[in-house]
Amino acid sequence: MTRVYNFSAGPAALPESVLRRAAEEMLDWHGSGQSVMEMSHRGAEFTEIAAAAEADLRALLGVPDGHHVLFLQGGASLQFEMIPLNLLRGRPVVDYVHTGEWSKKAIGAARALGRAEVHLAASAEDRSFTYVPAQDRWSLSPDAAYVHYTANETIGGVEFGFVPEVGDVPLVADMSSDILSRPVDMARFGLIYAGAQKNIGPAGLTIVIIRDNLVGLADPPLTPMLDYATHVKAGSMHNTPPTYAIYIAGLVFADLLARGGLAAAEERNIAKSALLYEFLDGSDFYTNPVDPAARSRMNVPFTLADPSLDADFLAGAKERGLIQLKGHRSVGGMRASIYNAMPIEGVRALVDYLAEFATARG
Amino acid sequence: MTRVYNFSAGPAALPESVLRRAAEEMLDWHGSGQSVMEMSHRGAEFTEIAAAAEADLRALLGVPDGHHVLFLQGGASLQFEMIPLNLLRGRPVVDYVHTGEWSKKAIGAARALGRAEVHLAASAEDRSFTYVPAQDRWSLSPDAAYVHYTANETIGGVEFGFVPEVGDVPLVADMSSDILSRPVDMARFGLIYAGAQKNIGPAGLTIVIIRDNLVGLADPPLTPMLDYATHVKAGSMHNTPPTYAIYIAGLVFADLLARGGLAAAEERNIAKSALLYEFLDGSDFYTNPVDPAARSRMNVPFTLADPSLDADFLAGAKERGLIQLKGHRSVGGMRASIYNAMPIEGVRALVDYLAEFATARG
Repeated sequence: MTRVYNFSAGPAALPESVLRRAAEEMLDWHGSGQSVMEMSHRGAEFTEIAAAAEADLRALLGVPDGHHVLFLQGGASLQFEMIPLNLLRGRPVVDYVHTGEWSKKAIGAARALGRAEVHLAASAEDRSFTYVPAQDRWSLSPDAAYVHYTANETIGGVEFGFVPEVGDVPLVADMSSDILSRPVDMARFGLIYAGAQKNIGPAGLTIVIIRDNLVGLADPPLTPMLDYATHVKAGSMHNTPPTYAIYIAGLVFADLLARGGLAAAEERNIAKSALLYEFLDGSDFYTNPVDPAARSRMNVPFTLADPSLDADFLAGAKERGLIQLKGHRSVGGMRASIYNAMPIEGVRALVDYLAEFATARG
Repeated sequence: MTRVYNFSAGPAALPESVLRRAAEEMLDWHGSGQSVMEMSHRGAEFTEIAAAAEADLRALLGVPDGHHVLFLQGGASLQFEMIPLNLLRGRPVVDYVHTGEWSKKAIGAARALGRAEVHLAASAEDRSFTYVPAQDRWSLSPDAAYVHYTANETIGGVEFGFVPEVGDVPLVADMSSDILSRPVDMARFGLIYAGAQKNIGPAGLTIVIIRDNLVGLADPPLTPMLDYATHVKAGSMHNTPPTYAIYIAGLVFADLLARGGLAAAEERNIAKSALLYEFLDGSDFYTNPVDPAARSRMNVPFTLADPSLDADFLAGAKERGLIQLKGHRSVGGMRASIYNAMPIEGVRALVDYLAEFATARG
């Protein structure tokens, strides 16, 4: 068996130690004689697994007691719809910050709902979404139901280096692709959400963290599955949760805690991303278009000076066990996603290959 | 390692061969150097896995070409809401058959939506949900948007032995707990749905099979994630699907095909359930309350003559590796769920224990 370095934007690489543990426990979790997949979600064993996963996630993120942690389904895409459905509270306007493809989807869902004006408090469209608009140039609506932003744009490779200041208006963030990559002050958020398949675990699990005073305000009332109140009240067990995905996420959380928590994770992510950006910036064969102040530590898009070499580049990378480097179909070029689970050795192997290819073909 | 016999109603036992294969492939699927959990859902490897899973499911169930197979999230509970949201088509009434706790939830969701009259075409409430009302006593509405029934009630242990005849009105069935347990003529259904965690695979995957002429009729229009048309158009890849759960489901489908398909599965399920019901009927210590014509092959509830012995019964069962026999909290007593993955050896071990306990304590 040879493991590859997987630069997929998501679903994405997981820590090898987590996968080994999952394989070892597949037929018999802790002497229970069952796979976690086979466990009743209301049994003692799974209750313990879910409680530990939540406790470890709370510890990692420093989630305040007044915030609920939910393990849901449907991905960020369902959150794009649930957020306006649940949080409008009769307000006339919602504020969104537009920084790329994922904020566009969130904005589109809020507009499609059509129950409030969707105001763009700021947009990076003027420079092709290659930067994060500075906070002092945002136009926030004082009566907004909430302010929404996308903490990291996986396609554009643009990441917020700051938490926006929005006064008393609830702050909502899509953290799908940089949750757990650095410490963040959760007390400042009304709601954050993240699909698991980038920095957490298997696809099919969605994390929502919501402040208690935003729960149960849906107006008009919603069907139960779309109402956060249902899931808060039932401790994410209104219906059967994605149990195996929660188990794997729990293993990832425990692994992160054992490795020093989010401060240590951030150090590793700074080191990995700096290694790659410094190489790209020092090369005249590769280009990353993003404002250095807004470059993502998680997703690094780049282009070759000669796009006709793209196919050769990807084929050579695959031969070396460096996979999923093709850029998103909407933008082309290349993209290296280097989430928590990508070891620095993988980034070094990529940089070595980048250098070799540029020398040979540049 | 000692594997138990797991009688959980869901999540439930999976074939040991499937779990072994999943463990073996956890770090490296077919020499790809990746876990299936780590694969991009749009990459060649996962595309192959998903296509094979769909093809095998179509082969098992004999799904007609004019029906779409969807791999969704949210469980049967989200389907309870999506079905009326998508299928009302401006009709004044929907017909539901009320046979127990799960039909009650489906009925409750349709009523909560409040956009059409929810007519009970038949109800087994008069005899505590211990039978299936005969078709000739149903009162169907000629102008119904659809007729909904619950093919198997996991809590009551009541299963339809027939597919209802409803003329031109679309027939909708919750098959969560007996899908793949016997051959069924899919051409007769407008829509069927099933949470995976009983007879298919891990929790977090929901199968929907919908006839093409019922897609895209939502009125008023829905947000994209709630509209079947979105998922049909995108081949279940509008957003990231629950990839690992689809992979495990695919292994279960392939295993069923290799063992003779659904005709052979039905023979095994008849043999297993007959063994258990015949023992219960021959005992004066245990009672199953369900009309023999409507007894579920999947979920067998029973009570002890002396309920004060329940705790001792469960403790003794657990010592013998027979777990999750406690009845649902809403009804008490015992319940043995014997889905496809429960081998007849497990049922024999249960019957041996039932006999032993009745002799010792009865």
